[in-house]
Amino acid sequence: MTWVLYLIIACGALSIAYGVWTTRAVLASDPGTARMQEIAAAIQEGAQAYLNRQYQAVAIVGVLIFIALYFLLGLPQAIGFAVGAVLSGAAGFVGMNVSVRANVRTAQAATKSLAGGLSIAFRAGAITGLLVAGLALLGVSVYFLVLTQFLGYSPASRVVVDALVALGFGASLISIFARLGGGIFTKGADVGGDLVGKVEAGIPEDDPRNPATIADNVGDNVGDCAGMAADLFETYVVTVVATMVLASIYFAGGDRVMEMMIYPMAIGGACVITSIIGTYFVRLGSSQSIMGALYKGVIATGVLSLIVLWPLTAWLVGMDTAMKVGDVSFTGQSLYFCGVVGLVVTALIVVITEYYTGTNYRPVQSIAKASVTGHGTNVIQGLAISLESTALPALIIIGAIIVAYGLAGLFGIAIAVTTMLALAGMIVALDAFGPVTDNAGGIAEMAGLPEDTRKTTDALDAVGNTTKAVTKGYAIGSAGLGALVLFAAYTEDLKYFAANADQFPYFGGVDATFSLSNPYVVVGLFLGGLLPYLFGGIAMTAVGRAASAIVEEVRRQFKEKPGIMKGTERPDYGRAVDLLTKAAIKEMIVPSLLPVLSPVVFFFIINWIAGKSAAFSALGAMLLGVIVTGLFVAISMTAGGGAWDNAKKYIEDGNYGGKGSEAHKAAVTGDTVGDPYKDTAGPAVNPMIKITNIVALLLLAVLAHH
Amino acid sequence: MTWVLYLIIACGALSIAYGVWTTRAVLASDPGTARMQEIAAAIQEGAQAYLNRQYQAVAIVGVLIFIALYFLLGLPQAIGFAVGAVLSGAAGFVGMNVSVRANVRTAQAATKSLAGGLSIAFRAGAITGLLVAGLALLGVSVYFLVLTQFLGYSPASRVVVDALVALGFGASLISIFARLGGGIFTKGADVGGDLVGKVEAGIPEDDPRNPATIADNVGDNVGDCAGMAADLFETYVVTVVATMVLASIYFAGGDRVMEMMIYPMAIGGACVITSIIGTYFVRLGSSQSIMGALYKGVIATGVLSLIVLWPLTAWLVGMDTAMKVGDVSFTGQSLYFCGVVGLVVTALIVVITEYYTGTNYRPVQSIAKASVTGHGTNVIQGLAISLESTALPALIIIGAIIVAYGLAGLFGIAIAVTTMLALAGMIVALDAFGPVTDNAGGIAEMAGLPEDTRKTTDALDAVGNTTKAVTKGYAIGSAGLGALVLFAAYTEDLKYFAANADQFPYFGGVDATFSLSNPYVVVGLFLGGLLPYLFGGIAMTAVGRAASAIVEEVRRQFKEKPGIMKGTERPDYGRAVDLLTKAAIKEMIVPSLLPVLSPVVFFFIINWIAGKSAAFSALGAMLLGVIVTGLFVAISMTAGGGAWDNAKKYIEDGNYGGKGSEAHKAAVTGDTVGDPYKDTAGPAVNPMIKITNIVALLLLAVLAHH
Repeated sequence: MTWVLYLIIACGALSIAYGVWTTRAVLASDPGTARMQEIAAAIQEGAQAYLNRQYQAVAIVGVLIFIALYFLLGLPQAIGFAVGAVLSGAAGFVGMNVSVRANVRTAQAATKSLAGGLSIAFRAGAITGLLVAGLALLGVSVYFLVLTQFLGYSPASRVVVDALVALGFGASLISIFARLGGGIFTKGADVGGDLVGKVEAGIPEDDPRNPATIADNVGDNVGDCAGMAADLFETYVVTVVATMVLASIYFAGGDRVMEMMIYPMAIGGACVITSIIGTYFVRLGSSQSIMGALYKGVIATGVLSLIVLWPLTAWLVGMDTAMKVGDVSFTGQSLYFCGVVGLVVTALIVVITEYYTGTNYRPVQSIAKASVTGHGTNVIQGLAISLESTALPALIIIGAIIVAYGLAGLFGIAIAVTTMLALAGMIVALDAFGPVTDNAGGIAEMAGLPEDTRKTTDALDAVGNTTKAVTKGYAIGSAGLGALVLFAAYTEDLKYFAANADQFPYFGGVDATFSLSNPYVVVGLFLGGLLPYLFGGIAMTAVGRAASAIVEEVRRQFKEKPGIMKGTERPDYGRAVDLLTKAAIKEMIVPSLLPVLSPVVFFFIINWIAGKSAAFSALGAMLLGVIVTGLFVAISMTAGGGAWDNAKKYIEDGNYGGKGSEAHKAAVTGDTVGDPYKDTAGPAVNPMIKITNIVALLLLAVLAHH
Repeated sequence: MTWVLYLIIACGALSIAYGVWTTRAVLASDPGTARMQEIAAAIQEGAQAYLNRQYQAVAIVGVLIFIALYFLLGLPQAIGFAVGAVLSGAAGFVGMNVSVRANVRTAQAATKSLAGGLSIAFRAGAITGLLVAGLALLGVSVYFLVLTQFLGYSPASRVVVDALVALGFGASLISIFARLGGGIFTKGADVGGDLVGKVEAGIPEDDPRNPATIADNVGDNVGDCAGMAADLFETYVVTVVATMVLASIYFAGGDRVMEMMIYPMAIGGACVITSIIGTYFVRLGSSQSIMGALYKGVIATGVLSLIVLWPLTAWLVGMDTAMKVGDVSFTGQSLYFCGVVGLVVTALIVVITEYYTGTNYRPVQSIAKASVTGHGTNVIQGLAISLESTALPALIIIGAIIVAYGLAGLFGIAIAVTTMLALAGMIVALDAFGPVTDNAGGIAEMAGLPEDTRKTTDALDAVGNTTKAVTKGYAIGSAGLGALVLFAAYTEDLKYFAANADQFPYFGGVDATFSLSNPYVVVGLFLGGLLPYLFGGIAMTAVGRAASAIVEEVRRQFKEKPGIMKGTERPDYGRAVDLLTKAAIKEMIVPSLLPVLSPVVFFFIINWIAGKSAAFSALGAMLLGVIVTGLFVAISMTAGGGAWDNAKKYIEDGNYGGKGSEAHKAAVTGDTVGDPYKDTAGPAVNPMIKITNIVALLLLAVLAHH
C-alpha cells in the first residue's frame, strides 16, 4: 500500500506545481501604471506587516502548546501539531502573497475586458485553493507515511491516531486566530472606513482621500484570503483526520485497516486532480455571466470527481467488498454512493447560497425593497432573511445524514464529508478570487482608472459576495455533517480507553452514557450551545470597537489635515493599518482561547461536582451542542451578511432610487451590520466548533497518558 | 386529600377576588379630562375590535382541533383542551380590558405624582398577573378535581394524564396565536409609526398628527398585555401539568401518588397568596426608584414563598419522607430545596436581565456609545450584546439543572420549575404594568398634558422595558429548565406504551434510544434547532411587511390630507388599526401552525424512511433541539431588544447629544430593529417550544389510542 501513499503525495505535489506554474503566469501579466503599482505596494506592505505580527503572536501560543503537547503526549504528537500549524500558516501566507500581486494585474486587465479580469482574478484564487487542498493533503499523507513506514508505528496505533489529531489541532489553532484576527482587521477597516467616509464625509468607497482605504484593502487580503485559507485548510485536515481515526477504530485488527485509512486521502488526491482540470473550464461564455463561468468549473470538477471516484473505490476498496461497522453492513459501492452524497450536498449548498445571496432572487430583493422605508426595516428584513436562510441547508444536512448513514453507517457519513471537502481546491478558488477583485476595484478607484473599469471590477465583486458566502456555507455545512463523525471519534476513543482501563487507569470505572435523559448530557448541550453565542458576541464587539477607533482616527486626520478632503494633502494610510493591526491582534486572543479552554475547564468542573462519568457525558454532549447552535449561528450570519451586501449592490445598480438615495443609505447601514456578521463572527464559528472537538479528543489522549 | 384540592381552588378563587376588588379600586380613580377619555376610548375600541377578530380566527382553529381531539382521544381530553384555551383567552381578555381603562387613569395620576402613576399602573398589572396565575391554577385544579373526584378516574390514569396534557395544549395554542398576532400588530404599528413619524416627518412619538399613533397604543395592549398574559398562562399550565404527569408516572402504584400530583398545585396556591401580599410591598421609597419599588414586591413575594413552602412541604409531603425515582433517592426536604432553586433562578434572571437592559450598566451604555458613530455601529453593538446576553442565563439554567437533579433527580427539576412559575402572579404584574404606562405616556402626549407628566410616564416606561425583558427571560428560562421535564414526560410515556404493547399495539417492537450516537437523534436535534430560526425569520418578515404597509398608509394620509401635519385635519386612526388587524391575523396563521404540524409531519416522514423506533428517537431529540437553539434565540432577542430600546432612552436622557442628535437617530434605528426582536419573534419562541413538546405528547396518546 506504500506506493498508493506515494501516489497521493504526488497528487499533493501536483497542486504545488500548479500553484508555482500559475503564479508565474499571473505575475507575468501587465501590472499597470506606476500609480497603480504604488497603491498595490502599499497594500502589499500593510498586509505583509499584519501577517507577520499575527504569526508572531500565534507563534507564542503555538510554542507553548507545542511544549505542553510534548510533555503531555510525546514528540510525534507535538510534531504533528507543528506540521498542521506551519502548513496552515504557509497556505495563508503564500495565498495572500499571490493575492496582493494579482489585484493590480486584475485591475489592469479589467481596463481591457471582463474576461481578462476574471481570468487573472480566478487564477489567483485557484492558486490559493489548490495550495490549501494540496498542502493539507501533503501534511496528512506525508506525516502518516513517516509515522507508519519510516518510524514503523502501526497505522491504527494510539501514537498515529493522536499525532493525526494533534496535526488537526495545529491547523485549527492557526485557523481560529487567522479567521478572527483577520476578520476583526478587515471589518474594523471596512465598517469604520464606510461610516466615516461614505456616510459622514460623503465620499465613495475606496476614495484615496479616505485614510482608511488602504487598510480596507489590506483587510480583504488578510481576512478574506489568508483567514479563509487557514479556515478551509483546517476543515480539510480535520475532516480527513477524523475519517482516518474512525477507520483505524472500525477496521482495527482486520486486514484492511491500511486501505481504509488511505481511502480518504486517496479521495483527496483524486479530487486535487479533478479540481485542477476544473479550473480550466472557468471561461466567460457569450452570456457574459460571471457566475455561469464559475459554475462551469464547479460542475466540471464535480462530474469528473463522480467519474473518477468509481474506479478509485473499486480498485482501493472493491465494489463488492462486504464490511460491517456496528449494526450496519455495507460494501465498497455503498461508500462510493456516500461520496456522491457529499458531492450532491456541495452542489445544493452552492445553489441555495446563491439563492439567498444573489441579486436575482427574492431574499436580496426583499432587503433592497425594505430599504425604501428606512434603516430599521432594512435591518429587520436582513435579520429575517438571515434567520430563514438556515432552514434549507439544515434540511440538506439532515437528509445527507439519513442517506449516508443508511448506506454505510457512521463511516458512510465520514466518507460523505471527506468527499465534500475533497472539492475544497475548487471551492476555495471561487472564494479567494473575491478579495482579488475587491482590491482591484479599490486600486481602480484610487488610481483614477476610467469608470468602465470600476464597473467591471464591481460586477466581479458582486459575484464574489455570493461565492464568499458559498464557501462559508460549505465549510459550516461540512461541520454539521461531520458533527457525528467527530462525536463518534470521541465516543469510540472513550469506549476504547474505558474497556482497557488496565492500561489507562484514569478511565477505571468510567461509564459515560449519552442519552438525552441524562441531565449532564442536557447540561453539555446547553453549554456547547452557549459557546457560538458568547463567541459571536465578543467578536462583534471587537469589530465595533476597532471600527470606532478607525472612525476617530479618520476624523482626527480630516481635522488636522484639512487638505486631505481637497486632495492637496496625502492621508496617513499607515497609521490606520497600524492601529488595526494592534487592535486585531489584541482582540483575537481571548475569544480564540474560549473554545480551547472551555472543554477542559468544563470537564474538570463537572468532574469535581459529579464525577468522571458525568463529566465525560457532559463533554461529549457539549461537542454536539456547539454544532447544533453553531450551525445556525454561522449560516445565518454568513448568508445574511452576503444578502445585505448584495442588497446594497442591487440598489446601486439603479433599483429603488440607486446610489445616493435614502434607500441606498439604509442599504449601506445593512451592509455595515452584515460585515462583521459574515466576515468575522460567522466564519470563525466553524474553526471554533472544530477546536472544541479536537481539544476534547486530545484531552482524552492526555488523560489516557497519565 | 380532596379538601386540599378545595383549598388550592380557594387560593385560585382568592386571586379572582383580588382582581375584582382591585379593578374596582382602579376604575374608581380619576379618568382625566374629556380629551383624555376620548383618546382612551379610541384605544379601547381598537383593542377590543382586534381581540375579537383574533379570537374569532383562533376559535375556528380551536373548534377543528376540539373535534379532532374528541374523535382521536375522547371527550375528557377535548374538554381539557377547551378549558385551557378558554381560560387563557379569558385571562388575556380581562387583563387587556383593565389595561385599556387603567392607562388614562395612570396618565391622570401622573399629572400629580410619580407614586400615584406607579400605583395605578402597577395595580392594573397586578390584576392581569394574578388573573393569569389564578385562572391557570383554577383550570388545572378544578378539572383535576372533576376528573378524579366527580368522574372517578384514577389520578394516574391515562385519561387524566391525557386530559391535563390537552389542557396544556389548549393554553399553548391560544398563546402562540396571541403572542404572534399581538406581536405583529404591536410592532407593525410601532415600527411603521416610528419610521414615518419620527424619522420621516420629524414629529415625536405619540404625536396626535401621526395616523398610526392610536394603533401603536392599541398594540401595546393586544401584544404586551393580552399576548404576554396568554404566554405566561400557558407556561404556568404546561409546567404544572408536566410536573403532575411526571408525578403520576414516578409514583404510580405507590400510596402517595395523589399527594405528589397535588403538591405542584399546592405550591401554586401558596404562591398566589404570597404574590397578593407582595403587591402591597410595591411602594415608592424616598429614593424615588421605580425599579426599587418593584423589587420590594418581588423580594417580599420571594421571601414569603421561601417561608411558606417549608411548612407546606412538611405537611403535604413530609420532610423526612424518603422517595426514589430512577437511581436518585431523596426526601421531602430535598424537594423543598428544589423549590428554593427555582426561586433563586428567578431572582438571578431578574438581576441579570436588569444588568443587560437597564440604563445604568455597561451593555445599554455601550450601545448608546456606539450610536455616536452611526446606525451601523449601533446595530452591530446591539447584536453583540444580544448574543452575549445569553451566556449568564444559560449558565444559571445549567447550574440549576445540576443542583436540582442532584437534590431530587428529574422530579426535583420539575419542582424547581413549578416553584419558579408559581411566582408568575408577581412577575406578570411587573410586566403588565409596562403597556399601561406606555399608553399613559401616549395619552399624555396626545392630550397635550404638561411636559412633566410625560417625564413621569417616560420614567415608568423605561423601567417597563426592563421588566418586560425580565418576564420574557423568566418564561424562556423556565422553558430551558423545564426542557428535561417535558422530555422526561415524553420518554416515560413512550416507555410505558412500549412496555404495554399488548394494550397499545402501535408500540409493538418499538425500541427508541436517545443516545447522541444514534444518527436519528442528531437529525432530531438539528430539525428541532431549525424551528426557532425559521419561525423567527417568518415572524420578523411579517412585522417588516406590516410596518411597510403602515408606512405607506401614513404617507398616503399625509399626502391626501395636507391639513394633518398643520394640525387642522384629523387623521383617520381607524384605517391604520384596521389594516394592522387584518395583517396580523393573516400573518399569524402559518408560523403558528409550524410548531403544531412539524412534530407530526416529521414523525411520519422518519417513520416512513427508517421505521418507528428511529422516528420516536428523532421526535424526542427534536423536543430538545428546539429548546437548545430556542433558548438562545429567545434570550438574545428579548434582552437585545430591551437593551436597544433603553439605549435610545439613555440618549434621550441627554447623553451623547440627546434627542435630535445623530446618535439619537442611530439609536432610533436600533430601537426599531429591536422591536420585532423583543416583542414578536423572541417571546413567541417560548410558546413555540411548548407546543412542539405538547404536540409530541399528544401524538403518543393518539398513537396509543389506535
